[in-house]
Parts: sequence; structure tokens; C-alpha cells
Amino acid sequence: MSYLSRVRRFVESLRGDGLSGALLRSPANIFYFTGYRGTGYFLVPVDGFPTLYVSPLNFELAEESVPGDIQVIKLEQGSDIRRVFELIPESLKTRIGFDAMEVEDYLKVSGQLVGSMMPVSKHIWKLRMVKDESEIEKIRRACEISSRCMELASELLGEGLTEYEVKSEILREMLSLGGDGPAFDPIVASGPNSSKPHGVYRNRMIERGDVVVIDLGVIYEGYCSDITRTFYLGPGSNEVSRVHQAVSEAKRRAEELIRIGVRASEIYHAAHGVLASAGYADYFLHALGHGVGIEIHEPPRLFRDSEEIFTEGMVITVEPGVYFPKRFGVRIEDTILIKRDGVERLTSAPYELALG
Amino acid sequence: MSYLSRVRRFVESLRGDGLSGALLRSPANIFYFTGYRGTGYFLVPVDGFPTLYVSPLNFELAEESVPGDIQVIKLEQGSDIRRVFELIPESLKTRIGFDAMEVEDYLKVSGQLVGSMMPVSKHIWKLRMVKDESEIEKIRRACEISSRCMELASELLGEGLTEYEVKSEILREMLSLGGDGPAFDPIVASGPNSSKPHGVYRNRMIERGDVVVIDLGVIYEGYCSDITRTFYLGPGSNEVSRVHQAVSEAKRRAEELIRIGVRASEIYHAAHGVLASAGYADYFLHALGHGVGIEIHEPPRLFRDSEEIFTEGMVITVEPGVYFPKRFGVRIEDTILIKRDGVERLTSAPYELALG
Repeated sequence: MSYLSRVRRFVESLRGDGLSGALLRSPANIFYFTGYRGTGYFLVPVDGFPTLYVSPLNFELAEESVPGDIQVIKLEQGSDIRRVFELIPESLKTRIGFDAMEVEDYLKVSGQLVGSMMPVSKHIWKLRMVKDESEIEKIRRACEISSRCMELASELLGEGLTEYEVKSEILREMLSLGGDGPAFDPIVASGPNSSKPHGVYRNRMIERGDVVVIDLGVIYEGYCSDITRTFYLGPGSNEVSRVHQAVSEAKRRAEELIRIGVRASEIYHAAHGVLASAGYADYFLHALGHGVGIEIHEPPRLFRDSEEIFTEGMVITVEPGVYFPKRFGVRIEDTILIKRDGVERLTSAPYELALG
Repeated sequence: MSYLSRVRRFVESLRGDGLSGALLRSPANIFYFTGYRGTGYFLVPVDGFPTLYVSPLNFELAEESVPGDIQVIKLEQGSDIRRVFELIPESLKTRIGFDAMEVEDYLKVSGQLVGSMMPVSKHIWKLRMVKDESEIEKIRRACEISSRCMELASELLGEGLTEYEVKSEILREMLSLGGDGPAFDPIVASGPNSSKPHGVYRNRMIERGDVVVIDLGVIYEGYCSDITRTFYLGPGSNEVSRVHQAVSEAKRRAEELIRIGVRASEIYHAAHGVLASAGYADYFLHALGHGVGIEIHEPPRLFRDSEEIFTEGMVITVEPGVYFPKRFGVRIEDTILIKRDGVERLTSAPYELALG
């Protein structure tokens, strides 16, 4: 889908809500609608030309990036939202939408409004949640690269390296395979560090007997991937493998149930049920998954109250996890595409637990 | 300075403004006041105990990180700001401060307010802008690591590598020297890519005859550094070296004038003047520099209207640059500490232009 047709669909939804236009600031939204990867303000009037306002720093890049039908205006360096508001036609200030706006900025411009401002993030997420072919291709490639990084990382685990050494090999592999960079700071969490879902900034030598959680994602041409594997550097521990098995089973069950028309919360409850039967309900600390696209965390959220219904073209993660404070954690995660006739797993590194 | 004494100084400034307390969300502010590196809500009542609210995901990490005088409360997973507001004593809701707040969140809680909410970022920046000894030690180490990364990168430039290959060596070196990770995605911008101050996501083979701008920063124990060098892979070009000389001279002039009591805008104008006399005023696209600390871009800003006055303990960058669209750019940047008796350059890689 072209950038312009995305803008047109957005305009339709603004019109449907009686809005005069929208002023977007989220770099992810701006990238989605224009192809430009940087900061700025994107004005989408219901009637008139879409306009991107950027600082002189980004003007050259913006001009190169956006399609010809979007005009690019160079702001003076240091301009804030007040200046942008001065440049906007008065007719738009009656009922204008915004995506991300800080209260302090809102207070700066509210005096210039002749009507009101309305949040329109939901309108945009409705579009962004469903990926088109060109987006899926980029996510697919990001997933391939991250799967390769995971394989490499798993090969390094037995070699007496520190967490940071493994992390740096992951980063190198991402870039060497053409990734733009990491989608987030990769997590290589060994031993007791693995019990914290987000890891810690504390380097540690990976040792025999450790559980190691590796969570990584790549950005490829602006689109993210997300994968987690948990390894165990033997000798055989019944407890670790019991947990790993329960987590795998929760994941398998969730993936089996995901299809068009199903509610995201149902899938969470199904996975939660599997972990609960195994006695781990209290140790499953987070949502089961999230959408993936230009951002690493997008709707839909797979959680207990999520009301989103799965549709074709959604890309989501499925990532059950169990964490025992100060001891160890186990998480397994894949990025998954929801298709007309089922799901396709886009990430693909081996699941084996033990390397010892 | 202990976390608690930072909190106490903040409380004094809140009290001075007649506020009942503040609810902070910026992870950088929360880290500054508590030592915890993650997301959450930090409540600072003018009377009562400071309290950190975190999700179950982060509870273990938070408990380990904060000093004993700060209480940590585990929220239910998925709680939003509405839930936090329910937990806050009513007496605080009369005149409560906030740091970073989205309009959408503000609308969620405004019904629960019995008074008003006030932005308090300025109060916090007044504290954070001046670094204490423990902060300076971390920034100093971050600067040492980034200087080493820059030296390594410069050694690799003649070796027929791509931009991404150099970038991945930089990342590896950061981690191997004990950095937590990059302070921002490192920029290795060669040839025409160097004309864009923020670089581009487009890999390129570095070739003889290229100008190469390398801009990198490291995080060490939560604190950032920032350094830029511009290299030229010969043969001698009068134009590139003329520009490099003007940029160096602008930087030298700025550093010479920086001292306690001087206004940040003055330094910008001094550097701008040097570039203007050389005929490059229109190609100096950005501010001359910015504060560096927990975040890579902090106040003070060294720009034309900046009103901040330099004081002892500020850490700033000085980074004049000149950019010719579609041709090349030159930027030189160091991180600098303002001391009682002058400035200390914390980053230190060689400045030589030509490697050819």
C-alpha cells in the first residue's frame, strides 16, 4: 500500500469523526504515513495537502524520503509546537486530532485553538495493527535476521563468555546481516539475572548450571522482530525442564487457538490456564504477547482484558514466561503472522533447552 | 549525594511552590531520585514517604535497587495511571506536580483531582543539570570508553569496511570495556551520508576520498557520554580541510569562553561568529551543544536564545558542524565538564582529519 493511500484511509476516519485534520508527532506514525524516519510534525488536513514540518537538520533526509504528494516545510532550528501552530491554517484549529502530546505542549497551544483537540491514536492503530504486504516482507526479514542471531548466541553459550560478550556478538551479527540495528537492547540474562523479565545492567560470566534467557529483536528497514529462547547449561535439573515444558505447552496451546475472529484475551487465558495447571500461575508476570511492527510494542496486547479481535495481517508475539525471584526464569517467544487460514511463525531458532 | 538527599532537595523546591507533592514518570528522573532503572511511577509527597509504584515485572529489580527509605509498591500487571491515582492519598491531589505526562493520561485522571496538576520538570532539571561527584565519575568513565571506541573506529577506516561493520566494532568495544550499551545508535556516515547530521539507515562501503563523520556515546552505570570526530580519507582536499579548520576553530573559541557565570547563548553566538566569518553560517544547522547526564540530551542547550547560565558541575557537549547537502559534512564534538576554574575535556580521541 502506498504512503498516500495510508494517508487517505486515515483522512476518511478523521472525516467520519467530524475532525478537520490531525497533527502527528509520533515518529513511528510519521514513518508509517510518509516513509521519513526522523522527528517532525505531520499535518494531515481532511481537505488539503499533507505537510511535514521538520528542522533544518532533517530537511534533506525528509525531502529524499517522502513521496512527491507530501510537502516538506523547513522550520527554523529550535521551533516548538507554538510555531507549528502558527503555520497551520485557521480552519483546521476547530477540531484537530493529535497522537502523542505532552501536557506541557498542549498548554502551549491551547490558547490558539478555536475549537478542541482530540486524541486520534486509536484511528491510527486500527490501520497500523494490520500489516500490508510490504510491511510483512520487512518484518519477515527482520525475523530471519533475529533467528540467525539467536542461533549464533546459542552456539556461544558453552564457551565461557560473559553476558556482554554474547550481546556484542548478537549486535555484530544483526548489522552484518543488514539489520538497521537492535529493536531494543538485547537481553542476555544468566543465572539469577534470568528471573527479571527485562534483565539487568550488570554483566556476569555465564557458567555451567546456568539458565540463560536471551531476548532480542532486529529493526530491518524500519520494522521490528522479537524472539526469546531459554537455554539451560546442564546438568539436568528436573525443575528447570519442568518449567520449560510448561512454558512450551502454554505457547503451543496459545498458537493453536490463534485465528481470525478470536479475542486476544481468550488466548491469554488459555496460556494462563496451562501455566496455572502446572502450578505456575503466580509466576507468569506479564502479558502473553503484543503486536510488532514499526514499534516493538504495539497493539494488540494479549492480556486478560484485551478486547481486540484478531484479523488477517496482524503480527504478534506469543511469549509466556515463568519467573522465580532470585533463582531463574524461563521465557519462550516467537513473532507470528496471522493469516487467513491460520498462523505462520516468522521467527524460527531451535527450542532445545539443554546445551550442557 | 545520596538518593535521599536529592529527594529532599526536590521536596524543598516543591514546598517552595506550594505543591503537595509530585508524581514522576520519566525513567530518567526516577533513576536520578531512586537508583532504579526501569519504568514506574514515583510519588514524592512533601509530607510523607517517597513511594515507587512498579509492575510485577519490575518489582524484584526495584526492591534491589532503591534505598531502604523509599517504599516499593507492586501494582497489578496492566495497571494504568488511574490505578496509581486511586492509591495516592487524597490530601496530595490538591496541587500535585508531574514531569512527563501525555494529554491522554491527563484526561484519565483529571476527574480525580480536587485541585490542579503542575509541571515540575524545571524544578528537577535545576537539580539534574548540576552533576555531583558520583555522577561525574560515571560520566568520566563513559567518556573514556567512548574515546577508546573512537580511536578503534578511526583505525578501521582505511580497511575497506562498510559503515555497519565499523558500527558493530564500536558496539563490541563499548561492551567489552564495561559500558552498559550505546547512549544512541552510533552514527558512521561516510561520503554524502555525512551531510545529514543524524545519519541515515542505509549502509555504505567506506571508500578512499570519503569524509566520514563518526558520532558515538556510551552509557556507563546509567550515565552517558558523547563524542564526534570527522575523518577524511585523502587525497588532500582543500575544501574539506578548510571546513574542518573552521569547525575546529569554532570549537576552540567556544571552549575558551565557557566558564561559570557565562550564558549558554553567548557561547553559541561566539562559535557561530567563527563559522560565519569563514562563510559557513548557513550550513551550521543545529545547536552548539547540550547537557549530558542520565540522558544524552539534557539542558542546558547551547543555542541562540538559551538563558541558562553555566555553573560548576555542568557537563555539556560542544559540537559545531557544517553540512553541505548531498556532498559532505564536518562535525567535531567533545563532552566537557565545567569546573570552578575552567573546563575539563572528558572525551579525548585525536582530532586529525586526514587518514589517507
